This record gives sequence, C-alpha cells and structure tokens, in this order.
Amino acid sequence: MSRTDAPFGWVLPLSLTPPRLGDNTADMDRLVSALKTALSTEQVVVPLGLARRLPQRLRTSDWQVRCVLLRDRSEYRLLDVLSALDLMPITGAAVDLGTTRVVVRLMDLVSGAVLGETAFDNPQAAVGPDILTRTHHADCDQGLASLRQSIVTAVNHHLHLLCMENDLSLQRLYALSLAGNTVMTHLFLGLSPHWMVREPYIPVVNTPPVLSGADIGIDMHPFGRVLVFPNVGSYFGGDLIAGILYSGLHTREETSLLVDVGTNAEVVLGNCNWMVGCAGAAGPALEGGAARMGMPAGPGAIDRVRIDPVHRRLTWRTIADRPPVGICGSGLIDLAAQMFRAGLVDIRGKIAAPHTDPRLSETGGIRQFTLVSENECVAGPISLSQPDLDSLMRSKAAMYTILTTLVNTVGLGFEDIDTFYVAGTFGAVIDPESAIGIGMLPDLDRKRFKILGNSALEGATRALVTNNCLPEIDAIRNGITYLELNVNQAFMAQFSAAKFLPHTDRRLFPSVSVPTVSH
Amino acid sequence: MSRTDAPFGWVLPLSLTPPRLGDNTADMDRLVSALKTALSTEQVVVPLGLARRLPQRLRTSDWQVRCVLLRDRSEYRLLDVLSALDLMPITGAAVDLGTTRVVVRLMDLVSGAVLGETAFDNPQAAVGPDILTRTHHADCDQGLASLRQSIVTAVNHHLHLLCMENDLSLQRLYALSLAGNTVMTHLFLGLSPHWMVREPYIPVVNTPPVLSGADIGIDMHPFGRVLVFPNVGSYFGGDLIAGILYSGLHTREETSLLVDVGTNAEVVLGNCNWMVGCAGAAGPALEGGAARMGMPAGPGAIDRVRIDPVHRRLTWRTIADRPPVGICGSGLIDLAAQMFRAGLVDIRGKIAAPHTDPRLSETGGIRQFTLVSENECVAGPISLSQPDLDSLMRSKAAMYTILTTLVNTVGLGFEDIDTFYVAGTFGAVIDPESAIGIGMLPDLDRKRFKILGNSALEGATRALVTNNCLPEIDAIRNGITYLELNVNQAFMAQFSAAKFLPHTDRRLFPSVSVPTVSH
Repeated sequence: MSRTDAPFGWVLPLSLTPPRLGDNTADMDRLVSALKTALSTEQVVVPLGLARRLPQRLRTSDWQVRCVLLRDRSEYRLLDVLSALDLMPITGAAVDLGTTRVVVRLMDLVSGAVLGETAFDNPQAAVGPDILTRTHHADCDQGLASLRQSIVTAVNHHLHLLCMENDLSLQRLYALSLAGNTVMTHLFLGLSPHWMVREPYIPVVNTPPVLSGADIGIDMHPFGRVLVFPNVGSYFGGDLIAGILYSGLHTREETSLLVDVGTNAEVVLGNCNWMVGCAGAAGPALEGGAARMGMPAGPGAIDRVRIDPVHRRLTWRTIADRPPVGICGSGLIDLAAQMFRAGLVDIRGKIAAPHTDPRLSETGGIRQFTLVSENECVAGPISLSQPDLDSLMRSKAAMYTILTTLVNTVGLGFEDIDTFYVAGTFGAVIDPESAIGIGMLPDLDRKRFKILGNSALEGATRALVTNNCLPEIDAIRNGITYLELNVNQAFMAQFSAAKFLPHTDRRLFPSVSVPTVSH
Repeated sequence: MSRTDAPFGWVLPLSLTPPRLGDNTADMDRLVSALKTALSTEQVVVPLGLARRLPQRLRTSDWQVRCVLLRDRSEYRLLDVLSALDLMPITGAAVDLGTTRVVVRLMDLVSGAVLGETAFDNPQAAVGPDILTRTHHADCDQGLASLRQSIVTAVNHHLHLLCMENDLSLQRLYALSLAGNTVMTHLFLGLSPHWMVREPYIPVVNTPPVLSGADIGIDMHPFGRVLVFPNVGSYFGGDLIAGILYSGLHTREETSLLVDVGTNAEVVLGNCNWMVGCAGAAGPALEGGAARMGMPAGPGAIDRVRIDPVHRRLTWRTIADRPPVGICGSGLIDLAAQMFRAGLVDIRGKIAAPHTDPRLSETGGIRQFTLVSENECVAGPISLSQPDLDSLMRSKAAMYTILTTLVNTVGLGFEDIDTFYVAGTFGAVIDPESAIGIGMLPDLDRKRFKILGNSALEGATRALVTNNCLPEIDAIRNGITYLELNVNQAFMAQFSAAKFLPHTDRRLFPSVSVPTVSH
C-alpha cells in the first residue's frame, strides 16, 4: 500500500482549484473549504503561523498538497501543508512517562512503522525516587518549574537523538502522545500535584486538552500537538487508560480484569458495557524498594530465582547478565515462591530454622536466607531476611485483597474473569506462576493471564497512529466508575487472611502445593 | 442593574461544590463541568496556563468565582477565573484600523460603558500613505514584520495609555475586536498582502480565527483573545462588515444601501434576505489626496465651504479652528457644490471665466478659484484649479456609477432604497446636500440618508460587548454576494454621463438647480 493510499490517518492529499477572477476566495478559506468537504466536518482550525506560510506553499506546490491534520475532540486541526511531492516521513512520538523510567518511541504516522525507541531514567529522580518526594519538592520555590523543565529537556534530548538516527528533522515531528501516572503528567504539564497528596486527593486536571508542543516546550514542528492521556484521579492515571486502550478490555463482551502491579496497585474490571476501577497502596516491596538488598529492575539485579524442590539447588539470573548487585521485584517474588515450594518458608511466611538448610542463618533472632554469598559477590552477600519477607507478605496480601475487594464489590468471583491482563513494565517481568505461588494473583488457569508488557507505551502508540482515538480514550476514562477503597473491618479481615502463603483459605489456590516446614 | 445581574455577556458567576472524598473530580474538570451545565454547551476550552493557576484561585476564593468567558465560533473559551469578590472591571478594546487613522476604544465588557477612546495616525504611513506602497514594502526583507510590529506597538501604546487613564491594569483587558480593510488586517496579522494586489486579487485569509493576544503580541491578559473582522475579498474588508453589523441593514425587511465613501468606494445593497456588495476605485480626490492643496481631514483643513449664491460671499471653516493649511475631502465636495450653485462652475465641471468673479483667475491657460488668498494664509494661497476639479469630477462620477451599477444589477432603482447608510469616518463629515449637489450620491429624500459615523469602530464595539456576535458576523460575511465590477462599455457610458454636474440626465437630480455660467 502506498502512503497516499492509506486510509486517512494523518495526511490528506488535496488537489485545489487555483483561484481566478470570479473565484477569488482567500487561500486559507479555499483550503479550509476543501478540507471540510473532504473530511465531512464543520470544524477545521488553522494556526495563524501556518496561514502566514500558506500563499507561498500553495503556489510553489501548484495547488497540489498533502495536508497534515490532527483530529482533536471537536475539530480537525491543520498542522502543515506540504507539497504533494514531499514524501518525507510524517512522524510522531509515543512516550511512556514513568516515575522511574521513561520510554520514547518514534513512529512513522502514515505507515505506522516504529522508527526507533529509547529508554532513560526519569531525571526527576535526582530530587527523589518516589512521587511523594517530588510532590513536596514541587511546592518549593521554582520546584515545579525545575521538575517540569528537567523532564521536558530529557524528552527533547531523546527526541533529538531518535530523529538524528533516522536522518529526520524535528520539524517532521507533528505529534507526541504521552501516558503516565497522574503526578508525572502533572509535573510534565507544570501543574501542581500539591492537592493530590492531601485529602480529598484532587488533581488539577483529569482530562487535559490537546496542547501545543511549542507551549509545552517540546522540540517539534512549530504547530505540533501534544496529547496527554486523561486520568481518572490522583491514583488512577493516564498510563492505566493507555493500558486499557491497548488491551481492548473496553471493547469485549467478556469481563476482564487489568492490573498494574507496583508500589501502587491499580486495577480495572469490566467489559464493553461497564468498568470499575480502584487503586491502593501495595507497598514498595513489589518493586524491590523495601528489601534490604532490593533494587529497581536494572543491570545486575537478580530477576529470576529457581530452587530445585528436591535438592534445593539454587539458580538465579541477573539482568543484562551482569554480576549480581541486588534483587528486584520479580526476583523477590520468585525467591519467595521458590522458598515456599522448597519448604524453606512456612504458610505464615516465616523462614525455616537454620539447621534445615546451609543457606539459612539466624543473627540476633532474625533469620535470613543467603541468595548470593559474600565470596560470590563483590557488593557483599545478597540475602532475604525475615523483615524483608514480611514486607513482601504485606504487599502481596494488599494486592490480593484489592483484587478480591474489587471483584466482590460487583458481585463477581475470580472464576468470572475471562482474561486477566497484567499491565506495566513491572508486570511484564513477573512470573505469573510465582505470583500465584505466593498468593499475590488469583489461582486461575494460566492461559487466562495475558502479560501486556509496556502497555502505557503501547496505548500511547495506538493513540498516536490512529489519530481519531480521543473519543475512544475519553469514553474509557469517563466509563470507569472509580471505587474508593474503603479500608474498613471487612477489608482488614481479607487482608489478614491473605497474609499467608498462598492464603488461609487453601481452596482459593488449588494448584499451589503446600509443603511442610521444620522450625 | 448590578454587574452580576446582567444577562450573560462575558462574566458568569459560579458557586462550585468543594471537592470531598467520593467527589474528587479534578479542579479543572469540576469547573468545566459546572460551566457546561450553566452554559448548556459541550465545548469549553481552558488554556493550560489558566489550569496551572486554578487550584489556588479556586481555594482562595472559597469556590465562589466569576468566570470570564469568550464565546468563540464552536466553543466557549475560559479566559480567567476571578474571585466572586473581585468586581474590578472586565475590559476589552474595539479598534478601527484605518489606513490613515486608527481609533482605539476601551470598553467595560460587563456594563457596556465606554471607558475611553483615543485616535492616532497609522504609523505605517511612514512607509507610505496608501495601501499599494505598504503592500510593496511588505515584500521587502523584514518589510512585513516591521509593518506588523509598528501597528502592534502603536496599538499597545494606546491601550496602555487608556488603561492608565482608567487606573486599570492591562491584565484586565480580555478581548480586542478589530475592524479594518483587508490589507490593514493582513498587515496587522503578519499576513502578506502580496497576492491581493495582483490578479486575481487573493487575500491570505477571509475569515481569520479568533486569535490569542499573546501570539499576536498585544499587551493584554495572558489568555486574552483578538477577534478580527472577516473580509469578503481584497477590496471589501472587515470595516465594511463591521459597518453592516452596526447599521442593522442585514436584519431589516426593507432594502437599504450602505456605502463607504473614500478612495475606494465600497457598497453593499440588501436586506435580511439577501445582500450584494461591490467595490471600485473612486480615486483619491474624495479624501483630499488629489487636489494640489488637498489634505486628509486634520487640524487646519478646510472642511466646510459656503458661497452665498446671490452675493457670492465665501465662508469656510477649518478643523479644530486652526489657521487654514489645505482643504480636505468634505471641504472639496462642499466647494464644488457651492461653486456650481453660485454659477462659478458649469455643468461640465469647468471653472467660469476669470472676469465673472474676483476670486477666479487663469495662469498659463489653467483657471483656478482662490479660496484663501496669500495674505490670509501663512502656508500660501489655497485654491482649486481646473485639474483639481477634473479629478474630483472623475471621482464623483465613479462613485455614482458604482452605486447605479450595483442597484441596477439586481433590477432595482434608487427609489427602492429605504435607507441610504453613509459609513466610515469620511462619510461622517460629508454634507449629503453637497454630495447630491455634485451628483456623487443619488438625489433621494434627505431623510433617507443616515450618517453612521465611524461605523467600523461601532461595529467592532458591538462585537466586543455582545460576545456571541461571531455567528452574526459570519452570517453577514457569508451572506454577501460579491459582484465583480465589470468595467465594460456600459459602465464607461454610465461613467461618462455622470461626469457632469450633477449629471447629463437632469431628471435624476430634480432637487438640484442648475444655474447659468459665463465663460
């Protein structure tokens, strides 16, 4: 399929009738009129700066043009008018704006091809790794402005590199689509997150308008636009909306559940007729933030652990095959599940007595399991202590309780869930088997689990390439009934019951076997 | 009527429900939702910069606010959110952007009161007094940019003065409405008029969008908007549309005619069902640009002339009662009409023989009439020579021919015209009696003439105060069928017949008496 044969996405070829006496409509009005007819719309907006260039552009291209258009909520917006002979790519960038990592993907908007992708640490981490620290920093003098500037500068830098690698000018970058949690998008837009962390937790904006790249400071085409995914609330962000968009949960008759596993657990349950969502704190353990040797997923982090249940032989894997320096969330979940299966941890999440395994030890009454010994690792021994495991137990119990509460609230059980989507970059590295093994995720047929990978990035990509995706995105956002998690007695009882491996009610996890542990 | 009791124009008072747990919509979305309900609209646009200020503004005003809104074509645009206790004026400025003179009027948008008005010479006159010189200058390197900058700077300067006189900040200026001819508005917007003076005479824009003041460089509220009147074509500008809006021609059942008398004659004929318009060159004589002692209307210009027909006693008046330095258009029309009535000019427009009056003389075969003698005037004698009068004869004949052609084209005669609106600042100073006396305007019952004054300014004022005037303005613009004046044999015959005083066909001017002249 040639570029101009593609169904209308971003570029509309137009052959205009040149003006003459008796047909002396102005250049802009002539073009707008042709666009209205071609697009069957009443609303086409032309920026003044583009109008200024129009007379020459139309005449040098002999009235044969390719129009680059963005479809905004209530109107089409003309971004550029190119000569029909100009077939250089029309590009856009999708951005997954994570608290820790940021991914930028350069797209050919016409062919839908990925031209390049790059990831980098969110430079705001210099202020603090978590949302709360950055929110407090934003309240300082120039704090918000500097946080905004740091992320905008970093995005610009990587857009520049991506364009350079593709021998393209930033002038050919017409759109940027960005999905992130609510605080990250607020900081990106220069909106104060101050009231988001104070009861009753109010963002400045739920549904940001499509913005001008120039206004935001993004290096792109002067009339380029920035689409920021809407959020449902302070704790249910645009990254989730992008994830839902990508999963298709909102289009299917069958009821599905989508969960973004992390420090904050964000869950949406529903189908094409209804959706309910909620969010709750699961604690930092799942992202490797609580354990003494815990670390974010990165080179040298142990992300996979296996313990042969018969001989208790231990094997592990590090990210990028680098010498081990710590253990990340997925490694921790694996380790706990494997230790449980091997009888090194009991159903209460307590580490077995030191005499039962040479890797077990006890110092000052605190038991621990050594994963990597001092002589195997230059950074010192990597071990899991009882407090580390306790922290993980709380996190996994919170996660399971949140899932249970949401599903039960609408009168369903886990057996009614057709597909269980695991969203987010962290979700992509979890082994569902281990997550079920420790009772963090429900014990469903493994085929029902669908790992989405970086669903925020994929959703942002889809919004970018589709071009008329905003009504769908808004419909997702507005279709979600947000459930305020009421941390009441019933919730706490559920939570306490979930603080076992895999659960106090073993019938909930029929596929998980429970070994005996010596103390 | 108190401010908040006024029917919605620009300010909407809102009492918002403060957020709480269970109603944690974001600040902007809460406000937008309340606005949509109050205004029964689906489209409310909030600039990002305003969203940034919203959390504090809403909380310090305890959720009781006054919203300043502009009604754009397809949407409401929120310009500001003030505390309900902030009752400082909400202002706007109407601008009549003339080629020669510019008038700026400061308005209280809520009460509709005029707060101040100022007029100044268009600084672009430094490049050249007429449209053509400026259009050529715009083609030079930086020419367009410097022309644009000069008018924007001048408007800003006078906005600043007007606000200062009213003890108001420019931050309280939310809207600017501007009416001018097509070239002037193009230069103001930085749009090249290059193709407007070349066949087939194409403007860049007929209907400009409502623009951001910040984008255009107007010193006003950061989210203030600029409304520029649309044009019908290169020679039928926004000043005419504003004039029609002010006259109400487009709302009445009876057929009226509106004419803007000047170097270019712009005419519109019609009623609430149809409108036809045309424009044609009348020559510079009518604005005092052709006669040797001609000058634009300004201090010291002779603008009224009377010659007692019996004793031929001459009296004249100057603008601002200053010593005479020249004669402006209305003075020239008066002079010609009075000379004709006194038998000093014959029906062919030829000056009588010198012996018939002491003020008449002949040098080198060229006759002239001395209006002010050398000893009465420090600037030298002020006189009307035969070539000056010939030039006026051509202009008045062109004007009459244009009017006749337009009226006849739709199958009407002047007797069918219910009201004859004379628009424009120049039109305001013409004595209709004199204009009829020389056969420039048709010989209708004087009661049918309605002098509109500065109709561009009045139209701009109305657009500003009404706030939802754009549909009406667009309807006027789109309702006009523009008639390309075909300067063919029939037109030239009409023109030749009109080059008499008042006309070759005396039946057309029954109220004008024709004296005998000695040669």
